[in-house]
Amino acid sequence: MSSFMERAFQLAYLGQSHVAPNPMVGAVLVSPKGDVIGEGYHEFYGGPHAEVMCFNSVKESDTNLIRESTLYCTLEPCCHTNKQTPPCSNLVIKKGIKKIIIANLDPHPEVAGKGVAKLEAAGIEVEVGMMEKEGEEMNRHFFTAMRLKRPYIHLKWAQTIDGKLATEKGSSKWITGSQARDYSQKLRSECQAIMVGSQTVLLDNPSLTLRSIETKHLKNPLRLVVSGQQEKKDFVSLKMFAPEYLANTFFVSPNAQISNDPQVIFYDGTLKGMLSALYEKKIYSLFVEGGASLLSWFLAEKMFDEISVFVAPKLLGSGRAIKLPAVDEIAEAHAFDFSSPLVLGDDFLLRGKSSSQK
Amino acid sequence: MSSFMERAFQLAYLGQSHVAPNPMVGAVLVSPKGDVIGEGYHEFYGGPHAEVMCFNSVKESDTNLIRESTLYCTLEPCCHTNKQTPPCSNLVIKKGIKKIIIANLDPHPEVAGKGVAKLEAAGIEVEVGMMEKEGEEMNRHFFTAMRLKRPYIHLKWAQTIDGKLATEKGSSKWITGSQARDYSQKLRSECQAIMVGSQTVLLDNPSLTLRSIETKHLKNPLRLVVSGQQEKKDFVSLKMFAPEYLANTFFVSPNAQISNDPQVIFYDGTLKGMLSALYEKKIYSLFVEGGASLLSWFLAEKMFDEISVFVAPKLLGSGRAIKLPAVDEIAEAHAFDFSSPLVLGDDFLLRGKSSSQK
Repeated sequence: MSSFMERAFQLAYLGQSHVAPNPMVGAVLVSPKGDVIGEGYHEFYGGPHAEVMCFNSVKESDTNLIRESTLYCTLEPCCHTNKQTPPCSNLVIKKGIKKIIIANLDPHPEVAGKGVAKLEAAGIEVEVGMMEKEGEEMNRHFFTAMRLKRPYIHLKWAQTIDGKLATEKGSSKWITGSQARDYSQKLRSECQAIMVGSQTVLLDNPSLTLRSIETKHLKNPLRLVVSGQQEKKDFVSLKMFAPEYLANTFFVSPNAQISNDPQVIFYDGTLKGMLSALYEKKIYSLFVEGGASLLSWFLAEKMFDEISVFVAPKLLGSGRAIKLPAVDEIAEAHAFDFSSPLVLGDDFLLRGKSSSQK
Repeated sequence: MSSFMERAFQLAYLGQSHVAPNPMVGAVLVSPKGDVIGEGYHEFYGGPHAEVMCFNSVKESDTNLIRESTLYCTLEPCCHTNKQTPPCSNLVIKKGIKKIIIANLDPHPEVAGKGVAKLEAAGIEVEVGMMEKEGEEMNRHFFTAMRLKRPYIHLKWAQTIDGKLATEKGSSKWITGSQARDYSQKLRSECQAIMVGSQTVLLDNPSLTLRSIETKHLKNPLRLVVSGQQEKKDFVSLKMFAPEYLANTFFVSPNAQISNDPQVIFYDGTLKGMLSALYEKKIYSLFVEGGASLLSWFLAEKMFDEISVFVAPKLLGSGRAIKLPAVDEIAEAHAFDFSSPLVLGDDFLLRGKSSSQK
């Protein structure tokens, strides 16, 4: 019954912003009569997995039902041991359920079907693929990171109708209204790390925290400042480097002189090199918020999975904008698969995916 | 009953594209019992007015009802004599109806309430203002021209998300898909004249005619080419100057040397001067289609009533764009009253009005 899987998804989403870099996972245990006798989800990084939480929730009086029950799980149970928690496939086998229904296989190289094989070898009936598409959507960050060995990349900017992200002098407060800005905070909360260019940090002195009502119970994403050869001393007086924020603020820098600093993520100066360095640090999703030159870097290399453009009904006619190498014909333009515009007060949100994420 | 006035509006709209520079007008005659005994509308410029058509449509057997009937008319009947057709207020008085209900007063300086005064003096009961707002919308071109002594100005362009109207070399075929282009033809058909810059004409060689299925029964708008000091010889081989189109194609030029040419509308080089010259030629609405520099001229002088921006889900990152003088702060940007985006295939249409037309 897909309604049990839907419930497992609902549970999984409760872990959003708290489980990264892990995927979101939910599990529901259903008795032969069709009663839900257990529910659980992965609540926070380092915490018990969904399957553990689910079995732990079964009442004493229902334990005798477990052997004939079906487990609905949004993700293939893990089977690798080199991590903080014991492999869930062992637990599932130990509990001796009858059947397991899984939305997605886990693309983690140490799982990737091995969890399923282990369960089948133990005589458990396994069905894979129920609500597979919804699972791909829910864990697109984790899945992309596992498959491509780089973080999932969500580019976001706010602009006037004519594509200006700021005035020529760099002022961008505020292009959009409060509804659009709150929505942007929601998108921000979905990613593991926010990335901005160092010029934007020096110009705007942002805190890059979650402040809207809908997001303030969520975990603040990491803050990544992509700097050139700058040293940290220019930044220490800024909000992101205040004592309460400092621990989760990192410099992403090709400056070898500061590469030993624990708050520096060193890379080779190329975009691919930067993404590899972030992946090695288990940063599996990026929300790239600008400025225009950082965004243009990702766009020019066609290196992104998703785009959110907030458009305000204003014209600047001059100012800072995305810059890409000129093409001769319109057919050579970057084209995206955009969904219908979402109206947010006076503004609009256009959300698009790159063709690789269609 | 506003349903009779609604019918009068339906009829009025049947004259769209054919009556300019006149306003659209519809009329419905209703007997004391509430039966429609006459209907008419202004069908084409130079043709009979709506009131005449309406009275002419009354059947012989119903003529005795006219004296007790109510006339619903979308516009105040005319009362001036220096034009092709006799004043309708005389006709209404002669027919001796009981009451007239009017949506809008006619802002034409020779009418402007004088028609109503004449009807009242003749003992006819007059009510003004039913569906007034709808009337203002329907005849916004004519009303704006009468009030401001310049054409109504509708700016239109198609752009990528990042505000590019063409590649750097000027190619703009095609930014948007066929649904958006067909819709643009519909908007084009609503105006009396299409205006383009001479560079666009030389680059694209457009025909600027109505070609979509929905518009091909309509009258082609006039074609206006805003030229600098160019002479016509550079243009004679282009589509707009082919024999079948030539009669309705005009040069709008500040070049005094060609000012005597009947196909040249001469002006003093300023935007206000150009608009006055067009008004004098009874051109009461403009659909300004580009290129970017012509549009920027209107925008920089805040001289427009309506904007339609077709946005394609593409990024060019370089190319031709609207250019306006730089401002320091976002609060100084031009802000518009935009309606919700209309989805047209893969593209979106944002329609806005300047604050003067709110």
